[in-house]
Amino acid sequence: MAGKIVNGVNVDALAETIEAIKKDPEIAAFKFRVKNTWRNGTQNHATIQGFYGAKEEHPDRKARLDYDIDEPPVLMGEDKGPNPVEFLLVGLSGCITTAFVANAAARGIVIHSLEAELEGDLDIRGFLDLDKDVPPGYKEIRFRFTIDADATEEELQELAQYARDHSPVASTIMRATPVTVSLAGR
Amino acid sequence: MAGKIVNGVNVDALAETIEAIKKDPEIAAFKFRVKNTWRNGTQNHATIQGFYGAKEEHPDRKARLDYDIDEPPVLMGEDKGPNPVEFLLVGLSGCITTAFVANAAARGIVIHSLEAELEGDLDIRGFLDLDKDVPPGYKEIRFRFTIDADATEEELQELAQYARDHSPVASTIMRATPVTVSLAGR
Repeated sequence: MAGKIVNGVNVDALAETIEAIKKDPEIAAFKFRVKNTWRNGTQNHATIQGFYGAKEEHPDRKARLDYDIDEPPVLMGEDKGPNPVEFLLVGLSGCITTAFVANAAARGIVIHSLEAELEGDLDIRGFLDLDKDVPPGYKEIRFRFTIDADATEEELQELAQYARDHSPVASTIMRATPVTVSLAGR
Repeated sequence: MAGKIVNGVNVDALAETIEAIKKDPEIAAFKFRVKNTWRNGTQNHATIQGFYGAKEEHPDRKARLDYDIDEPPVLMGEDKGPNPVEFLLVGLSGCITTAFVANAAARGIVIHSLEAELEGDLDIRGFLDLDKDVPPGYKEIRFRFTIDADATEEELQELAQYARDHSPVASTIMRATPVTVSLAGR
C-alpha cells in the first residue's frame, strides 16, 4: 500500500482507517480468541484462534500461534514454558511499545531505537489464599523505556504516558475489566 | 520429590510450601520481568528474563523465552506474531487453568481432561482516541471451561469461580492494577 511511512507505520493508511471508522464505527469492533488445553499439573498449551474485526472473520494467520505454559520448579512446575504472569508482561510490553511507536509516527516523531524493561511485583500469598489483604495479582507493574528519538524529553515523557493510557493491554489491566467464567453446556 | 500426586500436582509439596510461607512470608514475594525490543512498525520482540522469588534470583530457565509480537494486516502489521491483546489471553488462559487444577488437587478432585475457550471484546476506537466513552482495553473477557472431572456440577461451578478469583492474571485484570511508565535515566 502506498503512503507516507514513519517508524514503519503507514501514517496515511492509519489516517484513512480513522476516517473509515468515523463513518462506520462497527469497523472498530474486534473479538480476539484463545483456546487452552491442560496437559498435566501446571503445564498447559494455548493456541491463538482466528479473530473477528473490520466486520469479518479472520481465520488465517501466518504468525506462530501455539504456546507452552508452565511454572518454574520453585512454583512446582517443570519450566516447559513461561508462566501465565510472564505472558501477561509479554503482551503488555508489546502493547505500550506499539502504542508509543504508532502515536510517535502520527505526530511525525522519528524513533531510532526503543527498548523497554518491565517488572511486576507478585505476592503468592494471594493465590494461596493465606492473607485476604494480599491480592492474587500483580501489586504494581513498572514499564521503563530506553528511547533514541528525534524529540525533546518533554515530548517523550508526554508520549510515554499517552501510550500507556491508550494501550489496550495496559487499559485492560488498569481499568478493572470483567472476566466471566462458565462451564460449557451449562 | 516424593509426595501424593493429584492432577500432576504434588499436594504434599504444596502443603509444605504453604507452611513454609506461613512461617516466613518473605518467601512469597516474587518479581517477574520481561524485556522488549522494538523492530519496526507494529513488530517487536519480547524476551522473558530471570525472576526473583523464594528469597533468591532465578536467572536460568529451560523454557522457550523469546516471542515475536506483531499485528495482523487488518491492524496494519505483517502478522509476524500474535498481537499484544492475544498474548494477554494466552496468559489468562494458563492462569485460570492452573488455579483450577491446583485447587482441584488440593481438594482431592481428579480431573480427566480440561479445555478452555476465551474470547474478549475490544473496540479500537479507544486506542485511536475517537470516543472518550470507549476504553482502549477489553470491554469484557469470557472464559469457558469444558471439564471432565470426578466432581458434581456444583463443585465444578464453585471451583471455576474460585479459580478465577485466585488467578494472578485474572486478579491483575479485574482489580485495576497500577502500571507506571518512565524513561530510563530520567
